[in-house]
Amino acid sequence: VIRRIAIDAMGGDHAPGCVIEGVALAIARGVAPAEELLLVGREEEIRPLLVQHKVQGVDVLHAPDIIAMDESAAAAIRSKRASSIVVAMKAVAAGQAAAFVSAGNTGAVVAASTLVLGRLKGVSRPGIAVPVPTRTGPAVVIDVGANIYCKPEHMLHYAVMASEYARAALDRPEPRVGLLNIGEEEGKGNELIQQVHALLQAAPIHYAGFVEGQDIMAGKTDVVVCEGFVGNVILKVAEGLAAFIGSLMKGALAKHPPRPELAQAVGEAFQALDYAEYGGAPLLGVSAPVLIGHGRSSGHAIMNMIRAARSTLQHDLGAHIEERLARISREAIS
Amino acid sequence: VIRRIAIDAMGGDHAPGCVIEGVALAIARGVAPAEELLLVGREEEIRPLLVQHKVQGVDVLHAPDIIAMDESAAAAIRSKRASSIVVAMKAVAAGQAAAFVSAGNTGAVVAASTLVLGRLKGVSRPGIAVPVPTRTGPAVVIDVGANIYCKPEHMLHYAVMASEYARAALDRPEPRVGLLNIGEEEGKGNELIQQVHALLQAAPIHYAGFVEGQDIMAGKTDVVVCEGFVGNVILKVAEGLAAFIGSLMKGALAKHPPRPELAQAVGEAFQALDYAEYGGAPLLGVSAPVLIGHGRSSGHAIMNMIRAARSTLQHDLGAHIEERLARISREAIS
Repeated sequence: VIRRIAIDAMGGDHAPGCVIEGVALAIARGVAPAEELLLVGREEEIRPLLVQHKVQGVDVLHAPDIIAMDESAAAAIRSKRASSIVVAMKAVAAGQAAAFVSAGNTGAVVAASTLVLGRLKGVSRPGIAVPVPTRTGPAVVIDVGANIYCKPEHMLHYAVMASEYARAALDRPEPRVGLLNIGEEEGKGNELIQQVHALLQAAPIHYAGFVEGQDIMAGKTDVVVCEGFVGNVILKVAEGLAAFIGSLMKGALAKHPPRPELAQAVGEAFQALDYAEYGGAPLLGVSAPVLIGHGRSSGHAIMNMIRAARSTLQHDLGAHIEERLARISREAIS
Repeated sequence: VIRRIAIDAMGGDHAPGCVIEGVALAIARGVAPAEELLLVGREEEIRPLLVQHKVQGVDVLHAPDIIAMDESAAAAIRSKRASSIVVAMKAVAAGQAAAFVSAGNTGAVVAASTLVLGRLKGVSRPGIAVPVPTRTGPAVVIDVGANIYCKPEHMLHYAVMASEYARAALDRPEPRVGLLNIGEEEGKGNELIQQVHALLQAAPIHYAGFVEGQDIMAGKTDVVVCEGFVGNVILKVAEGLAAFIGSLMKGALAKHPPRPELAQAVGEAFQALDYAEYGGAPLLGVSAPVLIGHGRSSGHAIMNMIRAARSTLQHDLGAHIEERLARISREAIS
């Protein structure tokens, strides 16, 4: 049932090199067969890299334009219709591929997905869900910036969609859902939070109530629902803090005679925090699986995004989300 | 000119023990003379601890009630008028002390400060400013939860107040101010952010424009302005992540033969992140210096809060804030 995955060859700070490297890794390690991958981008740049990495059997869909990482998303997807992102989206919409993977301009991927693919039935706003490391394994934070004007209903949909994603991709049969707040007691938080709280209590999910910032990394719940603005900020704070602690550690260890095995131990500790291990961030709520990677994505990260896209296709995530949302709206009517 | 500092002897997870320890440290290290400190709380518990720590010359103001750390703030300050927080606030309002230091219930301190002390002239909403470690030294994030319904004007006042605080307590003569957003480009963010951006551009501060989550720890600006909800969440995320990384490091090092000097190096690296070094969080905008400490405050942390309170008094922070806000309102009229 799994069909081809379109891959943005031009997306990310190290594209197209790292993307082709990721494709080569995915094939070599049996993550995906070559014939199920479709590279979208500048053919003249992609072909030599495929030869260099000895990759055979991967189709290339030519797209001459590139949307830069810092380009304004809305303008770019209108003016650059021959960009890898827009061409890939159209390929998915036309059935040439069933999913899309990109480490490119996040805003452009979100805008193009919503515009070209459209939303799943019952979804008001797509949301970006980011798998984050916690003490009890990965959890999903949704939304991290697809939508900055959040209504209670959007956040209800986020909770439902991320629950289904945790089932499909993180192997959590009964994912617990938390609502990010500034305290755990009833009555805490602003009006939006109170309204979402009421909706989540009535929703067909495993709602665990309010969680606070420190509960995310403690792994208290499998899904953490928050506004896009808040989610975006905490993700970047976490990234900045991890890098800062890494540099403090490096400085502390540099004061002592080098011990390679210790440097390696530190490296292993930090690997648990590495976004590259987590398969990118799914844009949930659009009509095909879309995985968005960090701009700095390595080949390893691209491979894990391909894995996540396949897993999402395998579980028929879109159908599960639509079914669950239909159940909510039936219950609301009855 | 510095006058007495009232100290909440009953506030914090380890009170009153750690509080008296902090007072003893402050006196021993010359941070403050005994006669400028006023302990507020249960006299029968405080006196033996003063004897135990060989502290002399510190006055005690008896307050039999305690507001628990997780108690609802608004209800507690109404029903517990003999609590250390309310009694201390009244002592400040009556001129028996000039500043207040507490590691107790944050909501109760904020509510009691606003109600009993009142606001500085020109301030719409007090805000909690938290000094955070960055690559370029401490920066201040405001607000972290005193106010969860932020209007543009509140955030303008936060920017002005935290600038003055950075001057007074962090020794930054020309503090740069950033507005936390989900991108750096003009037009990014929601409507509130856009309105605040316009106000800050016109304000008599060193406004450096938008900053993102990762810029906080990079030390891009000395002051970071955000909504209370957002600030509260990022502070707790940062705390949770640092603890998580600490445990990952511990696990990684445990796999190797113990090397005490390396464990010490790691400890030193993490010390840069220790809230206890930063003198607590000032509640800015109320009519006397109020420093709020982490619930887990150690004696060392209490000592640094006393230091920050003295520094704030020394610089006559309240007068500077009122003057700066008056300038803004004069300019708005003319």
